[in-house]
Amino acid sequence: MIGPWKRMPFLRKMYSGKRRIWSSPLENQIKAEAQQWGQKPSKHLIDASWGDAHRLGMKPISFVRQVTAACLYPELLHSETLPVDARMRAQRLLRECYGGSVGAYSAMSGIPHVQRSVSDFISRRDGGVPSDPDNIAICNGSQSALLVILKLLSYGKGLNQTGVLAPLPIYSLFKLMLTTQGAFMVPCQLFEEEGWALKVEELRRVIQATRSHCTPRAMYVINPGNPTGHVQSRESIEGVIQFAAEERLFLLIDEVYQDSVHMEGCEFISYKKVLFEMGPEYSDTVQMASLHSISKGFMGECGLRGGYMELVNIDPPVMNVLHTLLATVACSSLIGQIALDIMADPPQEGDPSYPTYLKVAGMDASQLYCSRLLEEADLCVEPGCEYGQREGTHHIRICVLTPTENLEEVLRRLRVFHLRFLSQFS
Amino acid sequence: MIGPWKRMPFLRKMYSGKRRIWSSPLENQIKAEAQQWGQKPSKHLIDASWGDAHRLGMKPISFVRQVTAACLYPELLHSETLPVDARMRAQRLLRECYGGSVGAYSAMSGIPHVQRSVSDFISRRDGGVPSDPDNIAICNGSQSALLVILKLLSYGKGLNQTGVLAPLPIYSLFKLMLTTQGAFMVPCQLFEEEGWALKVEELRRVIQATRSHCTPRAMYVINPGNPTGHVQSRESIEGVIQFAAEERLFLLIDEVYQDSVHMEGCEFISYKKVLFEMGPEYSDTVQMASLHSISKGFMGECGLRGGYMELVNIDPPVMNVLHTLLATVACSSLIGQIALDIMADPPQEGDPSYPTYLKVAGMDASQLYCSRLLEEADLCVEPGCEYGQREGTHHIRICVLTPTENLEEVLRRLRVFHLRFLSQFS
Repeated sequence: MIGPWKRMPFLRKMYSGKRRIWSSPLENQIKAEAQQWGQKPSKHLIDASWGDAHRLGMKPISFVRQVTAACLYPELLHSETLPVDARMRAQRLLRECYGGSVGAYSAMSGIPHVQRSVSDFISRRDGGVPSDPDNIAICNGSQSALLVILKLLSYGKGLNQTGVLAPLPIYSLFKLMLTTQGAFMVPCQLFEEEGWALKVEELRRVIQATRSHCTPRAMYVINPGNPTGHVQSRESIEGVIQFAAEERLFLLIDEVYQDSVHMEGCEFISYKKVLFEMGPEYSDTVQMASLHSISKGFMGECGLRGGYMELVNIDPPVMNVLHTLLATVACSSLIGQIALDIMADPPQEGDPSYPTYLKVAGMDASQLYCSRLLEEADLCVEPGCEYGQREGTHHIRICVLTPTENLEEVLRRLRVFHLRFLSQFS
Repeated sequence: MIGPWKRMPFLRKMYSGKRRIWSSPLENQIKAEAQQWGQKPSKHLIDASWGDAHRLGMKPISFVRQVTAACLYPELLHSETLPVDARMRAQRLLRECYGGSVGAYSAMSGIPHVQRSVSDFISRRDGGVPSDPDNIAICNGSQSALLVILKLLSYGKGLNQTGVLAPLPIYSLFKLMLTTQGAFMVPCQLFEEEGWALKVEELRRVIQATRSHCTPRAMYVINPGNPTGHVQSRESIEGVIQFAAEERLFLLIDEVYQDSVHMEGCEFISYKKVLFEMGPEYSDTVQMASLHSISKGFMGECGLRGGYMELVNIDPPVMNVLHTLLATVACSSLIGQIALDIMADPPQEGDPSYPTYLKVAGMDASQLYCSRLLEEADLCVEPGCEYGQREGTHHIRICVLTPTENLEEVLRRLRVFHLRFLSQFS
């Protein structure tokens, strides 16, 4: 028999012996376990390796689901099933879709209204630093955005091949993404003994050493870190920006974990904000793409596929090429875009959905813990913040005046919930 | 002032002077016009250049929107707002999602249940030719799938660069996609005087001529054709398959318009079916990816982003690389996957939603016309098929026993609808 190998020798030559990195059988195996877990939670599968909160049992934010459902099925706009603000938001967003339908394509870089919501969100987050909606590109998650910008930056062979500096440890998919786009990964070791800090001296050492292998043209930073959880200080960010300016590196800033800072004394500051506060020597020159998405943080909507990149200091001809690259991947899911609009522009105080919209970002950790415990385990306890706990500490109050068998059930639920909570937020 | 040009000379060198192919301002301009059209239909914008039925006012299929809305907002599962079969389908699909939520990632090549629905659909469509769910990769539309397979096939420089034969005329985005993936487009002129036929003699001439420019490794065919509308006969498809086998070309078969064959004497036959009926010399050897999506045809759900490719005769190590490439783009939108499941496995006779599920594929054109006219323009006329019209002709019957001002309004609505209908189906 003449096998396809015989007939298509070039594919054999290219791909024979390549290791299977993401195998379908492995995923199926994990799925089988997850289904099993769905019926009977087991410690084994409380494993955050997937960074997928809904898979681990987190409930979606109702407002997100109500608005997207009404956009899909506009008959719901006239039904009392959904709160009035969810229906109004859906109506508003449908007006921004071509033909009034989420079934139509949007512009390739996203629905202009959503681009505006995102730039307003960024500007509010960064204490007024301006953000231009035309510099926002909405994609099927931050990963799609990163692929597009990597494609723009990756070219050359041998010594001229684009090198991208990246912190180590890093998630395995990142190196794979670089490789498929044709770039070379230049690893920069983080310092575990200093809480996984990124040190400019190490960056300088590495960039000198790598010039004999490739041409470094970009640097990737993920802040807060994955997998380290390290949160960069303002000084640390300034150091990286100075380094990028000196070495003329394009900064790829992954900020998808910006909602997930829970440690005392830690605060998320965006690269964009720091860049603009460093003055025009930097803010007019350093080129940057910063990424965020609906998949992580308090929304956790991985399956809806929504994310964006904000582009800073990119010249018009380069923006043209970026728009062209975006066109080749087509517009992103309109449902993901709508969820992104809600992330950027959540219900406000006074709106009917405000009380049920889980304001994780601004919520005390003990309050968040108790609210989730009630929602997910039907267990009602009180947060320590209502009792004047010392700042930086977190407590809950359980009333033990209950029959022993009840208390046993309370402790069982608490244990199951606690492990799940830790896997989401630690 | 030191502009970014000065600081990032490599980007200037790479991209300076590149023509803007898809500009955001142009899209905004078109949007402004479309919005204007939404209020007051004008002939000018009844222009199918976007291939976007919802944008042009086509109503979505209720069942698709009901199921996806219920998956997003499972509270609807218990409400009488939605028909029982839509709720049951949503419940079934949610069970197939990790954590029971469309907010979780799926496996990278799609929800296994949807892969099975798609392979069953293909097998039914092709009169029983087997289709393996493991060979179905679900993507954010057929365009995403095509990008992944092009990435697999594109490598080499100069004479060794991958050449991809493609019919001319072709949509402008295709060449752009090839270029961004690093392949070279080898155009093969179609013959307008023979109804835009694809001729093997021309393919042979072109492939010989191109060997001095590149290494032809694949051939792209779109059947039914875009923009030509040409539908290949079985003989024509056999000719292309024989040619691909002789020249060891990987076949990229775009069949997204398979529902859109309305001409007398024309029938869509898939490449997969013909390949398997040509016997093991071909069916065991010719490598192929065939594409389909929810964006075109009777569903027209461009904005939900759902499509698939079926891979034929791909060796396991190459499949591993494909899975790796799919992982770099992440799983596709779960809402798009759910709509794809419905396309592949629509409501059946006896289901409550069957009568309202617009069975365009099997409907007489005059019946379809009248049903749409009623739905979209509130105008009730009768289809010619109910009066025994000659096969291949299409009529409607309008009762003129109505006041003149009514008749004028009837003709106005008919004219507006007719132009829209033509732009969708011609």
